[in-house]
Amino acid sequence: MAKNVGILAADIYFPPTCIQQEALEAHDGASKGKYTIGLGQDCMAFCSEVEDVISMSLTVVTSLLEKYGIDPKQIGRLEVGSETVIDKSKSIKTFLMTIFEKHGNTDIEGVDSTNACYGGTAALFNCVNWVESSSWDGRYGLVVCTDSAVYAEGPARPTGGAAAIALLIGPDAPIAFESKIRGSHMAHVYDFYKPDLASEYPVVDGKLSQTCYLKALDSCYKELCKKYEKLEGKQFSLADAEYFVFHSPYNKLVQKSFARLVFNDSVRNASSIDEAATEKLAPFASLPGDESYQSRDLEKVSQQVAKPLYDAKVQPTTLVPKQVGNMYTASLYAAFVSLLHNKHSSLDGKRVILFSYGSGSTATMFSLRLNAGQHPFSLGNIAAVLNVGEKLKSRHEFPPEKFVEVMKIMEHRYGGKDFVTNQDISLLLPGTYYLTEVDSKYRRFYAKKEGGSTAAVTSNENGVVANGH
Amino acid sequence: MAKNVGILAADIYFPPTCIQQEALEAHDGASKGKYTIGLGQDCMAFCSEVEDVISMSLTVVTSLLEKYGIDPKQIGRLEVGSETVIDKSKSIKTFLMTIFEKHGNTDIEGVDSTNACYGGTAALFNCVNWVESSSWDGRYGLVVCTDSAVYAEGPARPTGGAAAIALLIGPDAPIAFESKIRGSHMAHVYDFYKPDLASEYPVVDGKLSQTCYLKALDSCYKELCKKYEKLEGKQFSLADAEYFVFHSPYNKLVQKSFARLVFNDSVRNASSIDEAATEKLAPFASLPGDESYQSRDLEKVSQQVAKPLYDAKVQPTTLVPKQVGNMYTASLYAAFVSLLHNKHSSLDGKRVILFSYGSGSTATMFSLRLNAGQHPFSLGNIAAVLNVGEKLKSRHEFPPEKFVEVMKIMEHRYGGKDFVTNQDISLLLPGTYYLTEVDSKYRRFYAKKEGGSTAAVTSNENGVVANGH
Repeated sequence: MAKNVGILAADIYFPPTCIQQEALEAHDGASKGKYTIGLGQDCMAFCSEVEDVISMSLTVVTSLLEKYGIDPKQIGRLEVGSETVIDKSKSIKTFLMTIFEKHGNTDIEGVDSTNACYGGTAALFNCVNWVESSSWDGRYGLVVCTDSAVYAEGPARPTGGAAAIALLIGPDAPIAFESKIRGSHMAHVYDFYKPDLASEYPVVDGKLSQTCYLKALDSCYKELCKKYEKLEGKQFSLADAEYFVFHSPYNKLVQKSFARLVFNDSVRNASSIDEAATEKLAPFASLPGDESYQSRDLEKVSQQVAKPLYDAKVQPTTLVPKQVGNMYTASLYAAFVSLLHNKHSSLDGKRVILFSYGSGSTATMFSLRLNAGQHPFSLGNIAAVLNVGEKLKSRHEFPPEKFVEVMKIMEHRYGGKDFVTNQDISLLLPGTYYLTEVDSKYRRFYAKKEGGSTAAVTSNENGVVANGH
Repeated sequence: MAKNVGILAADIYFPPTCIQQEALEAHDGASKGKYTIGLGQDCMAFCSEVEDVISMSLTVVTSLLEKYGIDPKQIGRLEVGSETVIDKSKSIKTFLMTIFEKHGNTDIEGVDSTNACYGGTAALFNCVNWVESSSWDGRYGLVVCTDSAVYAEGPARPTGGAAAIALLIGPDAPIAFESKIRGSHMAHVYDFYKPDLASEYPVVDGKLSQTCYLKALDSCYKELCKKYEKLEGKQFSLADAEYFVFHSPYNKLVQKSFARLVFNDSVRNASSIDEAATEKLAPFASLPGDESYQSRDLEKVSQQVAKPLYDAKVQPTTLVPKQVGNMYTASLYAAFVSLLHNKHSSLDGKRVILFSYGSGSTATMFSLRLNAGQHPFSLGNIAAVLNVGEKLKSRHEFPPEKFVEVMKIMEHRYGGKDFVTNQDISLLLPGTYYLTEVDSKYRRFYAKKEGGSTAAVTSNENGVVANGH
């Protein structure tokens, strides 16, 4: 069996169009700090009318292959995680095949995985399992997480975001899975769902969703600890991993989640928690589960107690989610990307624990073991390719009025046909794919902004491919 | 690594409500034989207003666990393939978790896989890979294919159908994967897709879809032959497998497909084709690929030549697809189920080749090796549990007018909320789940018809679960 299977390389793309949460706060007439402190968010990316989940994934896959020098023929599996449905039958993966078909490679397994924000994690697990299975043919796997999170006007709107992430999968990876250290929690709940098929917006029960997230977190952590103890013969605690990475709908929930793990460790008498902290949390230990999720006092005290550990083990993972917003399937991996960006030179030998949550609900906590790796698959090179600092800096901030205008256009066009976009690509970087047209049969046409390091695909050429001939 | 991983057990469910194609032909004013000979279909199942893809999968999973005596705690992975979207975010898998949650098992990986009719195959591959991977925890996997295929009034309507199939996955299986003998063809095409999100009906280019299917078939067969020859050091031919099973939108396409493989073998001078046949097909060998897909003469001659081989190697796989119709993700496995039903006592040691196609498009041809197995996981017991003959016989035929009426109700209700169903369960067998209500928040409630071998779930009890609390 292939050894140390995991993530060899990564790239991230988010739209250059964004809005400051502070400006949105003022525009919405919300109290000052409601979005920036209450949600813990700084900025939010969104797709303009020329971008969508398909264009973003075309952009990020092309970029990854180019920047790591991967021949498209070397890809043997490609799968996508997304909850942004543009077509209920045709997968996003099939759109990405245009990249590979022109190199004569159509023998690529994998489709789309779907359950809210968890689809990317499902795709990642599937791809890792493929490399470890007897059906592996020695080529690379490629996982794409792509989503555009938009909400109806109202309190949930600031929790949007948009991004696509591509992960190259194979053996001897600098970011290897410890697959035996893993716990899942799956249940039937209606916390966030998309039953109104004609609308892009979800139906959300915010309070229930937060409780479901924290319950799933508890359950996954318990399961992971159980498996670790069985495997290693000793208790797991927060001290056994260097960093903790969370699915991040908004940063405040990440703060609450890590505090919840600290509370868990204190109840378990785990070694990560000192006496002073244990004493502060002791009064809450006897709270019944359901009450403990609602207790403001526990929330406050546990966050206080957790603060130093949060700053060390979580804060380095929060940059991109705070700056780009909720990226649904890409959110967890954007948090992980933040860690690579901030700490790539000191991650050799370190364990990182990730928590993936998708409403509905599906959740897994799992473990990665990192090593410095070898060029081009080294943590240093991955951080260089990700180029997070530059990408964040080069964005264009929209005023709220303009953002609302774009949301209205997108709302109107969702599920529509027979239109051409304004094709305003002035803000897109060279190499970015964009939507040009949706024809009378709902067929979508994309083009690539010229000037990147590869030849541009003209809208005409691409049109032919998109036409299915 | 776990050995001989594959299908340990299977069960199938299709609605008791169906319509004879001959009656539909007459009602539609189509020429006699258009549906029965032109499409090659006998009968078509459809969901009445109390059934849907969720209720069908609840029914088939519960039935499989019961009939093979599987403790719900023994399931470690559960995944669903479907293209019938009821919710764009919440997976069908999460609805199935109600079965496992009440047994305290929430640690079950897997979500939904989506790309047209291929989603079930993707789920199956993922589940087999999981058992072979380092993340396998020794428990069973469970794959569910569930779809309701409905079309707008017009020529495509007789190509509908509905069913759910559950497959239990594990090592030492009577139906084991030969994972190295496999070829895929994935491409970006608009042959059949569902871009009109508010409608249950697809957009279909029937002619293009058939060509795409046959092109993918050629490409997969070529790839499979290449891999076989590399592995075995000799040419593969149709003689090297006992049976060929096809994704079956309608039987006529299966006839054409097998004839196409015979044509391929004749062009390749493969051992399966005798001299007389080679001579008849020789004039077509030089046709350029695209023309060969359109040639009526080739179609006719190749089907003639293929007839004896078709009767031996394909006909035993056609019963359920001809009687139930297109079941999308379940279609290929319903064809395989037909083979188990017809030939279970003579399959020991035999190789069976399956071809899975999903529009958009994604396709794989793959190989299974069968052995008699041991109770309860024996081919004989699987055939007994499937009980295909009885299930087909006990159905209720609707007159066309009544069928059209049901289609109208379903059309109106698709994506809707705030309604109760008529709860007419007179035609359902005991143990069948059914939809009782969709509330004002789009939450769906199911109940189980009493009288089966397990205690009934009252709508109240189930309602509480479905409410997410």
